[in-house]
Amino acid sequence: MDYRDLLRRVLEDVESTRGTGRVADYIPLLASVDPRKLGLALATVDGETFGVGDCDEPFSIQSISKVFGLALVLAGDGDRLWERVGREPSGNAFNSLIQLELEKGIPRNPFLNAGALVLTDRLLSLHGDSRAAVRDFLRAEAENPAIDFDAAVAASEAAHGHRNAALAHFMASCGNVLNPVETVLEHYFWQCSLAASCTDLARAGRFLARHGVRANGERLFSRSEAKRMNAVMLTCGTYDAAGEFAYRVGLPGKSGVGGGILAIIPGRCALAVWSPGLDAKGNSVAGVAALDRFTTLTGWSIF
Amino acid sequence: MDYRDLLRRVLEDVESTRGTGRVADYIPLLASVDPRKLGLALATVDGETFGVGDCDEPFSIQSISKVFGLALVLAGDGDRLWERVGREPSGNAFNSLIQLELEKGIPRNPFLNAGALVLTDRLLSLHGDSRAAVRDFLRAEAENPAIDFDAAVAASEAAHGHRNAALAHFMASCGNVLNPVETVLEHYFWQCSLAASCTDLARAGRFLARHGVRANGERLFSRSEAKRMNAVMLTCGTYDAAGEFAYRVGLPGKSGVGGGILAIIPGRCALAVWSPGLDAKGNSVAGVAALDRFTTLTGWSIF
Amino acid sequence: MDYRDLLRRVLEDVESTRGTGRVADYIPLLASVDPRKLGLALATVDGETFGVGDCDEPFSIQSISKVFGLALVLAGDGDRLWERVGREPSGNAFNSLIQLELEKGIPRNPFLNAGALVLTDRLLSLHGDSRAAVRDFLRAEAENPAIDFDAAVAASEAAHGHRNAALAHFMASCGNVLNPVETVLEHYFWQCSLAASCTDLARAGRFLARHGVRANGERLFSRSEAKRMNAVMLTCGTYDAAGEFAYRVGLPGKSGVGGGILAIIPGRCALAVWSPGLDAKGNSVAGVAALDRFTTLTGWSIF
Amino acid sequence: MDYRDLLRRVLEDVESTRGTGRVADYIPLLASVDPRKLGLALATVDGETFGVGDCDEPFSIQSISKVFGLALVLAGDGDRLWERVGREPSGNAFNSLIQLELEKGIPRNPFLNAGALVLTDRLLSLHGDSRAAVRDFLRAEAENPAIDFDAAVAASEAAHGHRNAALAHFMASCGNVLNPVETVLEHYFWQCSLAASCTDLARAGRFLARHGVRANGERLFSRSEAKRMNAVMLTCGTYDAAGEFAYRVGLPGKSGVGGGILAIIPGRCALAVWSPGLDAKGNSVAGVAALDRFTTLTGWSIF
Repeated sequence: MDYRDLLRRVLEDVESTRGTGRVADYIPLLASVDPRKLGLALATVDGETFGVGDCDEPFSIQSISKVFGLALVLAGDGDRLWERVGREPSGNAFNSLIQLELEKGIPRNPFLNAGALVLTDRLLSLHGDSRAAVRDFLRAEAENPAIDFDAAVAASEAAHGHRNAALAHFMASCGNVLNPVETVLEHYFWQCSLAASCTDLARAGRFLARHGVRANGERLFSRSEAKRMNAVMLTCGTYDAAGEFAYRVGLPGKSGVGGGILAIIPGRCALAVWSPGLDAKGNSVAGVAALDRFTTLTGWSIF
Repeated sequence: MDYRDLLRRVLEDVESTRGTGRVADYIPLLASVDPRKLGLALATVDGETFGVGDCDEPFSIQSISKVFGLALVLAGDGDRLWERVGREPSGNAFNSLIQLELEKGIPRNPFLNAGALVLTDRLLSLHGDSRAAVRDFLRAEAENPAIDFDAAVAASEAAHGHRNAALAHFMASCGNVLNPVETVLEHYFWQCSLAASCTDLARAGRFLARHGVRANGERLFSRSEAKRMNAVMLTCGTYDAAGEFAYRVGLPGKSGVGGGILAIIPGRCALAVWSPGLDAKGNSVAGVAALDRFTTLTGWSIF
Repeated sequence: MDYRDLLRRVLEDVESTRGTGRVADYIPLLASVDPRKLGLALATVDGETFGVGDCDEPFSIQSISKVFGLALVLAGDGDRLWERVGREPSGNAFNSLIQLELEKGIPRNPFLNAGALVLTDRLLSLHGDSRAAVRDFLRAEAENPAIDFDAAVAASEAAHGHRNAALAHFMASCGNVLNPVETVLEHYFWQCSLAASCTDLARAGRFLARHGVRANGERLFSRSEAKRMNAVMLTCGTYDAAGEFAYRVGLPGKSGVGGGILAIIPGRCALAVWSPGLDAKGNSVAGVAALDRFTTLTGWSIF
Repeated sequence: MDYRDLLRRVLEDVESTRGTGRVADYIPLLASVDPRKLGLALATVDGETFGVGDCDEPFSIQSISKVFGLALVLAGDGDRLWERVGREPSGNAFNSLIQLELEKGIPRNPFLNAGALVLTDRLLSLHGDSRAAVRDFLRAEAENPAIDFDAAVAASEAAHGHRNAALAHFMASCGNVLNPVETVLEHYFWQCSLAASCTDLARAGRFLARHGVRANGERLFSRSEAKRMNAVMLTCGTYDAAGEFAYRVGLPGKSGVGGGILAIIPGRCALAVWSPGLDAKGNSVAGVAALDRFTTLTGWSIF
C-alpha cells in the first residue's frame, strides 16, 4: 500500500467536513485560526513518515500534551500514579468540578483537566521544570528541536484560567496538589501552549505504537505499560465522547481543543490529524471523520 | 417577665449539652477554643440588653458576618442583588461546588460561602474597603467601637482557603466575581475573622428586629426589606439544616462555625448565643438547644 | 377592618396577573380548566369565613392534600415520622429521583412527591383506607360533607403516573415503602384528586392557624406540633421556590399544580387562593401575587 | 501452543484469588452458589473449544445476556438503536437513576440496566417473545439446545425487582419504554435468569470474534457492526470499572453479577470465565485475574 495515496484519499473523502464545526474561542488566539486547515500525517513503527494537507503547519496541541505528560509520569512513578488519579472514563465535561467534589479531589482520569493538573504537579516534583520536561520529550520523539511553546497562547490561557484555577485549588484543599497552586497552573498553561505539526505529533506518538520504545531506541517503559497507556487513551482520550470515538474510529486517541487528534495503531503506526472546527464535545469534526474513514478503508481498528 | 432570669433558666436547662459537639478544627485557632464556653444575650427593640454566661467574651463570628454584609448590599443595591445570587435554600454543604456548577456560577443564596463571596465582591465595588464597611456597621449597631478583626484568624483562613479560592475562581470563570479573585478572598477572610461577643451580636442584630431601623434611629432599608431579609435567614441561615432549625427553633437565624448563632424575634428582640461545639451540619449544639428552649419557654416562635 | 373589602382589593390589585402563567397539562383534565379563574377566601380562628371571586368553585387540590396527610400522620406517629422522611428544603424539583437516590430512599421532606408517597404508605398502615381518612379529615375541618374525590382525575393521574411509580418502586427497593407499591400509588392518586373550593380549604386550614385545635374544638396535636408543621410548610411547601415564597409572601403555605395555595397566618386566619396558571416552579402566578399583595397590605407576614 | 495447557496454567496462576470477593446476595439463589467455583473456556474462530476447571457447569449469566440482546437489536435496527440509548461509559453504578434523570430517560449505554430494559422493550416490538429470541440465539451460537432459563431465578429477580421497576417506569415517563412496563420487566428478568456454562458462553461469543459471522456461517451483521459492538463492550461492558478492565485486561468484555465474564479477542477467539466472588464494582475477582493473566501470558491484548 502507498501510504501517501491512502492519506490523500482519506482527505478527499472527508472534504465535505472541512471547515465545519466550531473553532474554540475561549481564548482569542485559538479563535483566529483558519477553520479550513486540514492536515494528516502517519509515522510507522519503522521510522517512515507520510503527510498530506496542512501536515507541516504547527498548531496549538493543547490537551494532546497530556499524553506526553502522562508518559513521563508513568515512566517515573509507575502504578503509584493511580493513587492520585483514576483511570475510568468520566462521563462529564473535561473541566467539571462536580465529579471531582463527589470523588474527594481524585480526578477520574489523567486526561481530564483536573487529572492533567495532578500530572503537572507530579512532574514539578519529579523534574523541577515540568514545562521543559514535556517540551524536550516531545522534541526528542518528534526529532524536531524547533518545537516550542507559544508564549502568547500560554499568557492567554492564564488570563482565562479561572476554571482551571478552581480545579487546582479544590484539589489542593483535598491534599492532591502539593506544589504551589500558582506554579502548577503556570506550568500547565505552558504545556498546553506547545505548538507542533501533524508530522511532529505522529512521530512523537510512535513510542506508543512501538510498545514503549522511544525514537532513540531506548525503552521508556515496559511493553505492558505501553499497552495500558493505550487503554487509557481509548477509554478516556476524547473527553466525554470516548465511547463514540471507540465506536466510530476504534483506536486509542487523544484530542485537543486546538483541533488536533493523535491516534495509535499498536504495532503499526501513529496518526495525527488537525482541523480546527470542533463538535459539541470538543473533538475536531473533520479530524474524527478522517480517522473514521482511515480505519474503514484499512480495517485497522483494534476491534 | 425578667429577661435575665429567663436567660439563666435557659442555660440551666441546656447545661447537659455544654461541651458536646465538635469544635471546628479546619484552622488551628478555632480548634483551640474552650469547648465548654456558653454565652447568651438578648437585646430588645427598646434598647435594653441582657446577658448570661460567657456573654461578654468575644469569639470568631465567622459566617454571622454574612448577615451584616447582606444588609449592606441590600441597602446599597436593593433587589438588583438577586440577579447575581439566589434566595433558595441549598440542600447542600455550605462550600459545595456541585450546585454552583449546575447553576452556572449563581450561588443558591447569600449565606453559602459562594454567595458571601459575591456579597464581598459587590461590597468592594460599593465601598472600596469592604472589610471596613462590615466592621464599622457592626461597631455602630453594637455600639462598641472595640469590635475588630482577628488578624491571626484571617491569616489562618487564608492559609487554609483553597476551597473558597475554588469557589471564587469558578464564579470568576462565569463572570460572577468582578474584582480580582485574590482581593475578594482576602476581604472575605478578614470579614470572617471579626470577633464579637454575644452582647455585641444581639445588639447588632436589633435592626432586623426593628424592621430596618438602626441603632442611631436611621432607617437602613424599608420595613419590607427587613422582613424579606428575615425570610432569607429563616430559609437559608443555618447551612443545610435550615428546615431542622425552623422546625425546632422557629426563628430567623444565622450560625457560624465559631459556634455563634444570631436569631431574630421580629418586633421584639435579637438573641445571640455562643458555644463552640458543632453538630454535623456545622451549627452549635448547645446554641441550637438554648434557642429551642427559649422559644419553648416563651412561645415566641414566629409560627 | 372589613375582610371582604380587603380581599376584594387584593383581587383588584392583581387583576393583571389573572390568566397568566401556564395551566398544568400533564393530565388532560387539568389542562381544560379555564385559566382566568381566580378565587380567594379567608377563614378566621374565630370561625368566620370570607371569600371573593371564584371562591366557591371546587378545583383539584392536588398537592395541597399533602398538608392533611401530614397532619394525620403527625397526629398518629409524632416524631417517629422523621425517621422515614426529612424536613429540609429540597432544592430540586418535586418529582426528582436524584436526591432520593443520593439519600438512599429517604425523601428530603413530606411535601415532595416521594415524601407524600411515604405519608400515604404510613396512612395505609395507620388507617387502612388512607383515601377515606384524608377525605374525611378535610370534610370535617371544612365542615362540608360534599367534598369528594374526582374519579376521572384519579384515573388520569394513574394513567400518567410512571414518574410517581418510579419514586415508589425506588423507595420500596430501599425498604421505605412497606405496603404494596400499586396500593400506595392508587391511594396517592385518589388523594391528589380531591376537589375543594377556596372556602373549603381556608376553613380546613384553620387547625394550623389555631395551633392544632380542630373545627370541633378537639385538639389534633400539640401547640408545639402545630408550630412545627407551619415551619415545614414555610421551608418546604412551595416546591423548590420555598425561599422565593418566604421572601415575597412570608407565610407558611402549600401549593398544588391545580393552581391552589393554602397559607397560614398563625393565631389569626387561614387563606386559600386559586388560579390555574402556574409559574416555572409550579406555583400559581396570580395566587402568589394575591398572597404577596395581601401581606403587603396588612403587614401580616410572620417576619 | 496447546490451548488447554495455557488455560490450565492461567487457573493455577490465579488460584490464590479463588473464593475471594463477595458473592452477589441481592437474591437468595445467587447467594447460595459455591464461592470456590472457577471455570475457564476458550472457543476459537475455527470452531475449536477448550475448557478447564468448572467450565461445563451452568451458572446464571445475568448481565452477559445483554450482549446477545444488543446483538439482536443491532441486527434488527442498526444505528436507529442509538436514538434511544447512548454508547458512552457511564461512570455510575449499573442501576443508578441519577444519570438517567439528568439525561432525560436516555440510558448512557446498552449495558446499564436501564439500557438493557430499552433493548428488551425493543426486542418485544421486534420479536414478540423477546425471551425466546435471546434464548434461541444463545442456543444456536453455543450449539447447545439445552440452554434454558432458570425459572426460580427469574421469579426471585422479579420479587426483588423494585429498582429495575423504578428505572423502567422512569423511562416510560420519558417515552423511552413503549411496551407495558410490567411486560418489559418480566422479559428482562427472564433473560437475566438464563443459565449457561463457560463453554456455552465462549462458543456463543464467537460471532464477535468472527466479525459478525454466526455459528451456522451466516452473517448476523456487518464486519463494521461487529467491531463497533466490540468497542461498546470495551468501553461499557464492565459496569463503572470499564477503564480498569481495559487497563488490566485490554479486551472487550461483558461481566455479570453471577460471576461470569465473556471476553473477545477479535479475529482469534472468545473467552469465558466464571467465579462467583465479586469485587466492589460487581466484577468477578478471580475472573478478572484470570483474563489479566491470560493476556499477560499471550500478549493478546488489543492494545
